[in-house]
Amino acid sequence: MPKRALMHVLPLLALTVAVPSAAQMSKSEVASFLDEREERLTDIAMRIWDLAEVGYLEEESSALLAGELEAHGFTVEWGVAGIPTAFVATYGSGSPVIGVLGEFDALPGINQAAVPYRQPIEGKIAGHACGHHLYGTASSAAAIGAAEWLKRTGSPGTIRLYGTPAEEGGSAKVYMVRAGLFDDVDVVLAWHASGVNSASPGSNLAVKSAKFRFSGVSAHAASAPEQGRSALDGVEAMNFMVNLMREHVPQETRLHYVITYGGAAPNVVPDFSEVYYYVRHPDPEVVRSIFERVVAASAGAAEGTGTSVEYEVIGGAYSRLPIVALQEVVYENLTSVGGVFYDDQELAFAEALKGTLPPNPSVASAATIQPFEHRMTYASSDAGDVSWKVPAGTLSAATWIPGTAAHSWQAIAAGGTTIGVKGMMVAAKTLALTAVDLFSDPARVATIRAEFEKSRGADFRYDPLIGDRDPPLDYRARSPMP
Amino acid sequence: MPKRALMHVLPLLALTVAVPSAAQMSKSEVASFLDEREERLTDIAMRIWDLAEVGYLEEESSALLAGELEAHGFTVEWGVAGIPTAFVATYGSGSPVIGVLGEFDALPGINQAAVPYRQPIEGKIAGHACGHHLYGTASSAAAIGAAEWLKRTGSPGTIRLYGTPAEEGGSAKVYMVRAGLFDDVDVVLAWHASGVNSASPGSNLAVKSAKFRFSGVSAHAASAPEQGRSALDGVEAMNFMVNLMREHVPQETRLHYVITYGGAAPNVVPDFSEVYYYVRHPDPEVVRSIFERVVAASAGAAEGTGTSVEYEVIGGAYSRLPIVALQEVVYENLTSVGGVFYDDQELAFAEALKGTLPPNPSVASAATIQPFEHRMTYASSDAGDVSWKVPAGTLSAATWIPGTAAHSWQAIAAGGTTIGVKGMMVAAKTLALTAVDLFSDPARVATIRAEFEKSRGADFRYDPLIGDRDPPLDYRARSPMP
Amino acid sequence: MPKRALMHVLPLLALTVAVPSAAQMSKSEVASFLDEREERLTDIAMRIWDLAEVGYLEEESSALLAGELEAHGFTVEWGVAGIPTAFVATYGSGSPVIGVLGEFDALPGINQAAVPYRQPIEGKIAGHACGHHLYGTASSAAAIGAAEWLKRTGSPGTIRLYGTPAEEGGSAKVYMVRAGLFDDVDVVLAWHASGVNSASPGSNLAVKSAKFRFSGVSAHAASAPEQGRSALDGVEAMNFMVNLMREHVPQETRLHYVITYGGAAPNVVPDFSEVYYYVRHPDPEVVRSIFERVVAASAGAAEGTGTSVEYEVIGGAYSRLPIVALQEVVYENLTSVGGVFYDDQELAFAEALKGTLPPNPSVASAATIQPFEHRMTYASSDAGDVSWKVPAGTLSAATWIPGTAAHSWQAIAAGGTTIGVKGMMVAAKTLALTAVDLFSDPARVATIRAEFEKSRGADFRYDPLIGDRDPPLDYRARSPMP
Amino acid sequence: MPKRALMHVLPLLALTVAVPSAAQMSKSEVASFLDEREERLTDIAMRIWDLAEVGYLEEESSALLAGELEAHGFTVEWGVAGIPTAFVATYGSGSPVIGVLGEFDALPGINQAAVPYRQPIEGKIAGHACGHHLYGTASSAAAIGAAEWLKRTGSPGTIRLYGTPAEEGGSAKVYMVRAGLFDDVDVVLAWHASGVNSASPGSNLAVKSAKFRFSGVSAHAASAPEQGRSALDGVEAMNFMVNLMREHVPQETRLHYVITYGGAAPNVVPDFSEVYYYVRHPDPEVVRSIFERVVAASAGAAEGTGTSVEYEVIGGAYSRLPIVALQEVVYENLTSVGGVFYDDQELAFAEALKGTLPPNPSVASAATIQPFEHRMTYASSDAGDVSWKVPAGTLSAATWIPGTAAHSWQAIAAGGTTIGVKGMMVAAKTLALTAVDLFSDPARVATIRAEFEKSRGADFRYDPLIGDRDPPLDYRARSPMP
Repeated sequence: MPKRALMHVLPLLALTVAVPSAAQMSKSEVASFLDEREERLTDIAMRIWDLAEVGYLEEESSALLAGELEAHGFTVEWGVAGIPTAFVATYGSGSPVIGVLGEFDALPGINQAAVPYRQPIEGKIAGHACGHHLYGTASSAAAIGAAEWLKRTGSPGTIRLYGTPAEEGGSAKVYMVRAGLFDDVDVVLAWHASGVNSASPGSNLAVKSAKFRFSGVSAHAASAPEQGRSALDGVEAMNFMVNLMREHVPQETRLHYVITYGGAAPNVVPDFSEVYYYVRHPDPEVVRSIFERVVAASAGAAEGTGTSVEYEVIGGAYSRLPIVALQEVVYENLTSVGGVFYDDQELAFAEALKGTLPPNPSVASAATIQPFEHRMTYASSDAGDVSWKVPAGTLSAATWIPGTAAHSWQAIAAGGTTIGVKGMMVAAKTLALTAVDLFSDPARVATIRAEFEKSRGADFRYDPLIGDRDPPLDYRARSPMP
Repeated sequence: MPKRALMHVLPLLALTVAVPSAAQMSKSEVASFLDEREERLTDIAMRIWDLAEVGYLEEESSALLAGELEAHGFTVEWGVAGIPTAFVATYGSGSPVIGVLGEFDALPGINQAAVPYRQPIEGKIAGHACGHHLYGTASSAAAIGAAEWLKRTGSPGTIRLYGTPAEEGGSAKVYMVRAGLFDDVDVVLAWHASGVNSASPGSNLAVKSAKFRFSGVSAHAASAPEQGRSALDGVEAMNFMVNLMREHVPQETRLHYVITYGGAAPNVVPDFSEVYYYVRHPDPEVVRSIFERVVAASAGAAEGTGTSVEYEVIGGAYSRLPIVALQEVVYENLTSVGGVFYDDQELAFAEALKGTLPPNPSVASAATIQPFEHRMTYASSDAGDVSWKVPAGTLSAATWIPGTAAHSWQAIAAGGTTIGVKGMMVAAKTLALTAVDLFSDPARVATIRAEFEKSRGADFRYDPLIGDRDPPLDYRARSPMP
Repeated sequence: MPKRALMHVLPLLALTVAVPSAAQMSKSEVASFLDEREERLTDIAMRIWDLAEVGYLEEESSALLAGELEAHGFTVEWGVAGIPTAFVATYGSGSPVIGVLGEFDALPGINQAAVPYRQPIEGKIAGHACGHHLYGTASSAAAIGAAEWLKRTGSPGTIRLYGTPAEEGGSAKVYMVRAGLFDDVDVVLAWHASGVNSASPGSNLAVKSAKFRFSGVSAHAASAPEQGRSALDGVEAMNFMVNLMREHVPQETRLHYVITYGGAAPNVVPDFSEVYYYVRHPDPEVVRSIFERVVAASAGAAEGTGTSVEYEVIGGAYSRLPIVALQEVVYENLTSVGGVFYDDQELAFAEALKGTLPPNPSVASAATIQPFEHRMTYASSDAGDVSWKVPAGTLSAATWIPGTAAHSWQAIAAGGTTIGVKGMMVAAKTLALTAVDLFSDPARVATIRAEFEKSRGADFRYDPLIGDRDPPLDYRARSPMP
Repeated sequence: MPKRALMHVLPLLALTVAVPSAAQMSKSEVASFLDEREERLTDIAMRIWDLAEVGYLEEESSALLAGELEAHGFTVEWGVAGIPTAFVATYGSGSPVIGVLGEFDALPGINQAAVPYRQPIEGKIAGHACGHHLYGTASSAAAIGAAEWLKRTGSPGTIRLYGTPAEEGGSAKVYMVRAGLFDDVDVVLAWHASGVNSASPGSNLAVKSAKFRFSGVSAHAASAPEQGRSALDGVEAMNFMVNLMREHVPQETRLHYVITYGGAAPNVVPDFSEVYYYVRHPDPEVVRSIFERVVAASAGAAEGTGTSVEYEVIGGAYSRLPIVALQEVVYENLTSVGGVFYDDQELAFAEALKGTLPPNPSVASAATIQPFEHRMTYASSDAGDVSWKVPAGTLSAATWIPGTAAHSWQAIAAGGTTIGVKGMMVAAKTLALTAVDLFSDPARVATIRAEFEKSRGADFRYDPLIGDRDPPLDYRARSPMP
């Protein structure tokens, strides 16, 4: 098993050749600047991995990252968009303004030690199964690297790190977009933990989610059931009609639900029941219209079962708007930085973990970069909204053993080792170098923005899928009970 | 197998002793008057059995009965309550006015030869599985017998035979009650074909039925299902919610349905679908409120599936209001007339048929009279409405082999033989003698009406469950297709 | 609001007249013996009310009662039937052996202060909404009273208090019957908290309950739903088929369920889901057969949804076998003890609480005794099994404001005041005096046992509905999560 | 409205240039040969349009086509594959063997006069809503044209017309493939009526269909529902589980059903019910596996509802295997033949009908040829199986107004006018000229077959989705009643 102290980083030989030298700091020097800080970055990432704070409750995790940015000269604004754990850290001034997204929330209901076999950690109720401890740390590192370049070169330009909480269902970025926090940004950069290294242009699914809460009339289920109206009947009737609806939506639609409260005791007719729905489709407008049909199903279910229903929109996100010209810059830098190369200990760990995963893709593929081609992902992210406000570039880095699924224990396990850290460093350097390219080449930014305006369309008007609701700051703390 | 020509009727020995002599015609003579006409009555009943005309289409059957009544001095009014095959035949004048109900419609979807084993008749699409050929004939005979008594004795009084079509789902009596045809009647008498002889007071279930018709949007089910809205989805969602509702209604409730049109071809999203519902409960007001909940289920189903729905009330009937004082008169006369005694041929037929039936009650029980006690029947009849307008007495006569279920092929079989005829004669004589008793004893009529007023309650207001719809004269002819 | 210190007990004037004096201790003296100990009994009952320990976790509550019995010379056997909190406390020797049942578990999910308006107690997760704090205390008091009579009179006879945990879903008495703990008992006595005073013979519903646990295959609900098999689909399909089944069971059947685990997050296809079912009917054998059909529905649902299912029987109880000859003894003593009379403070409390309850029956009815007549209750109790092993007599005492439903906050509220204590004293004295009558009159015991043998039938073989499972000692502690 | 006598055919100018002259008969002469026979072909097509014979009952329609082929020297074999209305008509000898498919069955449940507004024909229960009257006629004409070329040139080669009945649900071609009728064929040609002219390579959906028949226990729905087991419950439970399954199949899957028998009368628990299912997906093996899951849903439904179920596979077809090299030949000939040009009367008809159709594509597009590109169609055809046995080329011809859907009344209307005939002539000439090309150029046939072998794969083993069932010769005549 790899020890954090034993990490070795591959020399960035390719970079010394591929990257043109900047005024007073070459891209190779930017990469080295970050490599030299790997131990410090590792400490931060592993501390956040240990904390595993869930959405909107990431007080320590966000403070760790913001503190590091302040230590490197960033100015931090806290509590943006009405969210206590959201922040914006800024360095530099003038154009262009480059934003970097940084997430840090953990996933509840799953946890795991950093071992290549299933071993939950006693008493821990959440885990970094989506690698956000690496995400926030790498992004902050990239911002620090870009700030260093601005400082040393004296170039005009502003670098911002957006500390974005609660990606897992809390949709913080949407509230941040709605609050206008990205209005003056030229380009946004992001990345994600993965089992592959990739910077292809791609899209995903828009999503709108809501909790439907049915109210009925309680009664003794054996002695007076005729006096009761079961709220669970309402939930089941709604689900029935949504399941029928599956035939009558475009095939790329995704509708899924869990029953979050299905009654307390069989001998009492439940007067409360709750079901939690996601509606997804590549097109946000289709999501909007199908969501209305789901609402109609809930209303019809209430009418037909003698119950009543209300719903609360929980989250909502646009699908990603891919910008090919921007992904090309990211791709160039990713290929120059290169993939993840395991040392012997890491290889042993990876191969042990591979025994619990599908055989393809191979462990060796962590060292490679995926071909540049359009990719569709059937998943959603609140980064989607950002991509309709600002041209947004992204990449994946192989922080996990190839073949690992997001939200799996294997993701937590690898993310807690030097394997995760190596992937994190790939991301940090790729993002920093991309920012340097954009600061250095205004024409490229202009091209990117032109493609963005064209892809978005002249008629586009941003209307967030979460509507006018406030951030659900207690969504991880609430019980479904009435 | 019994031949119609070989019928032997038991001498009414009991009657010659038990019945007090009336002015110019004793009850025993009334019974004999009917016995002497048995061959003629048999011809009529068997002709109707052969015709097997279904609801509202009973042109020949009703004409046969009305013709016989006219031949005995009755005045016939046709087309009452807007129903071509409904009639009222009247004899005599003054009080009291005694009505007798006579049904004559057959049941579609079942037929059978008069043999003690299953043998459908080729090409025949309906059969007298509920014995209405005997019902109408015996009731007409009873009215003729009572008229003869009125004529010979010169007593004041009016006897009426109500020719009531379409009992099987057409609810003709309800329209006849609604039209005021029973408003001036003092007492109504009725009977029904059965496997037992009984004149106990009893009640049954009120019912309201309707066809719910869903409309959707048709589309190619493979190439454009997202453009379709399935009307069958509407039906299934409605059914789902009604099935949930079963838990939340009083346990004596009955809810049942069939899907009468569920789409034409799988490769087309159905734009039409129909489901046919019955709602029943002992209390008509409970039926009314549960029916509204079923309507709400249909509306909720339409809303939740993107379809629309309309419903047509098909039938509706009150539960029977039993009048003990009236049943006592019927019971006295039934016990004096006696049960059904098989001759050797009939016994052989009965025992052969018994092989296809439950062993209990025994074949011999056809000769006995059931004890007088309150009985609840979980079935419905449009005679229910009559019983809330006029005190209504009824009996069952053993026209079928004991153990035979209504609507079975065994009922058709026995009803086509002398066994059915013997049961019919029991009913004809019991009804005629009961009418004579009521004509003879005004105090008894007063007692009956006093109980009726008290049982019905001072606040009672008749509000038919069929609402204001017209008789569904084409309900047996229509296709569910739009 | 009544204070515990202000309780006034009505003088037992009726008893001094009505009860014939026994050898060295009259029934009146037995009643007085208990009245003198009311303050002590109040302390015990209110301590258990405060503890509100849930099923199989009633360590302190059971110890309080057993300690009181030991202090009065009873020998206590702990851990009977493999249940740590179950005990049998015995006094005396020889025949007859009279058992008294005592319950003491609280109901989770509900709590309330002893005030006549809704006021949950912060941090308390359970409450005595079924009055078992009074039940156990009154029964123990009755046993102590009967023991005192045995001691003073020197009569032969054994009195036993059965400390029976976990009535609310844990079915402890069934395990205790199965373990043979009632094999040598002649008569068992019991009671229950109520809004009325009654000792009529009556029956209730047999019940069998189980948790059905479906397992599926987890998958990302958006990116790979076709690889998933939803365990919640299994639950919903099972429920669907059970809801269809409602039409095809005898109308006295009760089927009810809650979904105790319906998935964790909508974006993951649930690989686990749980539904908790009760099946009830007056006849245990009908329960058994319908339960098998419910199991078939679960198996069919698993087959049809590509999931698997296992079930765990949670509880099971026979319906009560009423013994009229025994109820007559209880009824005689209840009428002599009399009902519950409120003082001014109690009346004010009762009337305030009545504002939250149906107007009928009136507050004043707490002072009356219900007429002696057969009563059917659509509820279940694990005391049912006892009643098929031993003749079991029971009564209800008005510990709650008339009109209060079991398992309501109003029941907790009244049960925490002197109103509850007064009802408890009615029960304690009635049970003690009934035991004295049985000890005094062997012929009456013989009559009771003869009726019992006849009612139960010669062919009866006890086969507990819980089968061979062990007591679910952790049923209140477990999470439904796999 | 266009009269049949007024048809004008565009001169085939393009052909005179593009087609190389053959030995004694140029391709231009082959086209002219067909054009000269247009009136005769029109008579045949319109006679079949009038007959509108449904699947496996096309006695006159098939005889008309076979008679015409015999009149041109073809030898006809009747009753192939055990199907009375299927035939194979052969001309010539030796290699290559070219087959042409000809359909002729009408669609039940829809009919229409040849007018540009909705006007059903009284008493007609079927119509050529899929243009098979044109299909069979054009294919026969093409075979006759190719035979003429073989005769005049004396070239080796065999031309066969396959008279394939019951395409609409009867899957006759599958039985014909299974019977080995295509084993010695080198290339098969086909076409279809459409609103466009196209010869692109494309695929569609494999399909497997079945009727699931549930049996239960009948009972009076009001008086003894607990004795009944509703077969309709089985159907609804199966449907419920299939609707849940929609979430867990690949998104290209299509599952659709209609309830073909849902009970006779609400007052009887149905002991029979039938549901008719289609399962479709591009991959026949996926269809096979999902069909098994649908069968599991039926079995689970039966188990869970106390019913039993059997199923009968009704149809099954592979998806089309496209052969690019063959489509290129068809495309070349289609572009040389050209599209459909309306005269003034036809234009007026087309524009009137367009008022009932979507505005795009335009009426004018009937004159154009669609670009050559891969196309996916979400529909199925029994020609799919042929395409896995023999390289099969196909085209669409604009027999309908652009924008017309198959199975619509607009398709019947246009198909009954000269518009349909003009499209038919496009198809007839394109197929004939393609056959001539293949007879003329063995190398091209070899290329086609090489691609076919490669696309099909070395491991391919044909296993028809209909299994070993016999042709459902009575599938249009049967009632679902048991």
